[in-house]
Amino acid sequence: MGINILESDSIYLGIDGGGSKCKAILVNGFTGEIIGTGLAGPANPFNNYDQTITSIKDAALKALVNANFNETEINKLVVGIGLAGVNLPAQLHKMKQWSHPFKAIFVTTDLHIACLGAHDGLDGAILISGTGSCGFSDVNQKVNMIGAHGFPHGDKGSGAWLGLQAVKQVLLSLDGLEKPTLMTQLLLDKLACNDGLDIVSAVAKQTSSFFAKLAFIVFQAAEEGDNAAIVIAQEGASYMSNVARRLWQDNPPKMSLIGGLTPKLESWLDNDIKDKLSMPIHSPEMGAVIYAQQNTQR
Amino acid sequence: MGINILESDSIYLGIDGGGSKCKAILVNGFTGEIIGTGLAGPANPFNNYDQTITSIKDAALKALVNANFNETEINKLVVGIGLAGVNLPAQLHKMKQWSHPFKAIFVTTDLHIACLGAHDGLDGAILISGTGSCGFSDVNQKVNMIGAHGFPHGDKGSGAWLGLQAVKQVLLSLDGLEKPTLMTQLLLDKLACNDGLDIVSAVAKQTSSFFAKLAFIVFQAAEEGDNAAIVIAQEGASYMSNVARRLWQDNPPKMSLIGGLTPKLESWLDNDIKDKLSMPIHSPEMGAVIYAQQNTQR
Repeated sequence: MGINILESDSIYLGIDGGGSKCKAILVNGFTGEIIGTGLAGPANPFNNYDQTITSIKDAALKALVNANFNETEINKLVVGIGLAGVNLPAQLHKMKQWSHPFKAIFVTTDLHIACLGAHDGLDGAILISGTGSCGFSDVNQKVNMIGAHGFPHGDKGSGAWLGLQAVKQVLLSLDGLEKPTLMTQLLLDKLACNDGLDIVSAVAKQTSSFFAKLAFIVFQAAEEGDNAAIVIAQEGASYMSNVARRLWQDNPPKMSLIGGLTPKLESWLDNDIKDKLSMPIHSPEMGAVIYAQQNTQR
Repeated sequence: MGINILESDSIYLGIDGGGSKCKAILVNGFTGEIIGTGLAGPANPFNNYDQTITSIKDAALKALVNANFNETEINKLVVGIGLAGVNLPAQLHKMKQWSHPFKAIFVTTDLHIACLGAHDGLDGAILISGTGSCGFSDVNQKVNMIGAHGFPHGDKGSGAWLGLQAVKQVLLSLDGLEKPTLMTQLLLDKLACNDGLDIVSAVAKQTSSFFAKLAFIVFQAAEEGDNAAIVIAQEGASYMSNVARRLWQDNPPKMSLIGGLTPKLESWLDNDIKDKLSMPIHSPEMGAVIYAQQNTQR
């Protein structure tokens, strides 16, 4: 049996929803302490609205239980929600229409909460490279988004883009239209394939998440001196450096690089960009809490 | 009421099955005359096996009716079948296991029947650029396939690839990461969009067929002197020229360019490749008939 939330105004829930999972944290608004966490399924309203609201509720209930609160206390929660997909106005509108079970919700993009988290609620900019890629700045109440176009027509410099380039290059190489590359054996091994036809079968109709898992092939081959892989890594990093240059034009006080590809990508960025990066302070889900606090305290 | 097929050995059915439709022709084996045609839905066994066999039967029955034969005569037909997707061994095996309603079937790839059709059953090579792209040669009983990797990781120089490049370039341009291009207004108009966000919504999760319908944007802008479009058209055509060079190494007596992009793409090919192209003689579905004849007369 859980306990009751006595001072509901002091408890915030932060939600970070994306294409593969939905994270929730329950935070004491006075101390900033995380008192509960919950993890649920995918929450991208562009992909699936019903699944998204189910995942958000699911993650919220898990966080309540994890903090030893009653599940019935859900209606006392003030919630900040950052979601992939709501950069599209129709999706944001739909989410805001949701008859949610909370006390109040404040919905914004996954990029916005990531930026708020990285800079502890202050102005700043972020470069993101994970499965997808983009740049985002939040300066003087004005947000700016660069990229976030999606796969396969955008998201250059992301894991999915790097994996896709590796597959392209290997298939052309196996057809004798490009030079041999170390990426070929790495890809054949990773996909348990014997030849190009096997690769064509293995990659057919796969999503961005699948291709993102192949990104390491580019970095590994590049580190071993493979020219084709170096060209791909440089092209991706050069694009991210250009995104950073565009974001610096918005005069953010700080810029952070976040996302799953950070450890690999950072060293490939142009020096002038790399040298000015700051470490992110908080997680995106804490950024969602900050977003809810900023909206209730205004 | 239809009539009966008296001399069943002299009537052949040719099937050309692909991702959007299935064409059938009924041919008098002695005269080569087309005596009936039928058109049905998609027939790509990699996409959907059940739909494929339904479409093939459907197209066959329509061709029988069109030729004024009884539908019950289907079991007297000797059938040549060319299908997209059966270059993957598992799909070819599955098609060959089919408990079909015909007298006999001979299954091969859509590329093979296109090549047989283009060169009237003789040795030769084909360059294909439609929704997808590839090269194929059939010389001394040995076939060779270049490309046909699929979308979005391959099929360079195809309609889908050209359309995808146009979308990429326009989105980067609208983000200020690439120079303005004439393709932007053409794409906004074609998709009835107002800005980059609209485009991102419109192209999300679309298939190769969708992107192929945008290929004209590249050619139109290139013809008006747009540099970004010219670079795309040249890169696609240069790839197809390289595929042709690889195919000429197989010593085919002739080479034809076929597929929906032929009228636009041909002028962009390298001169040495363009000058050696022959006009295709027959359609792919007639190539399927030729394949069935070659297999029954051996």
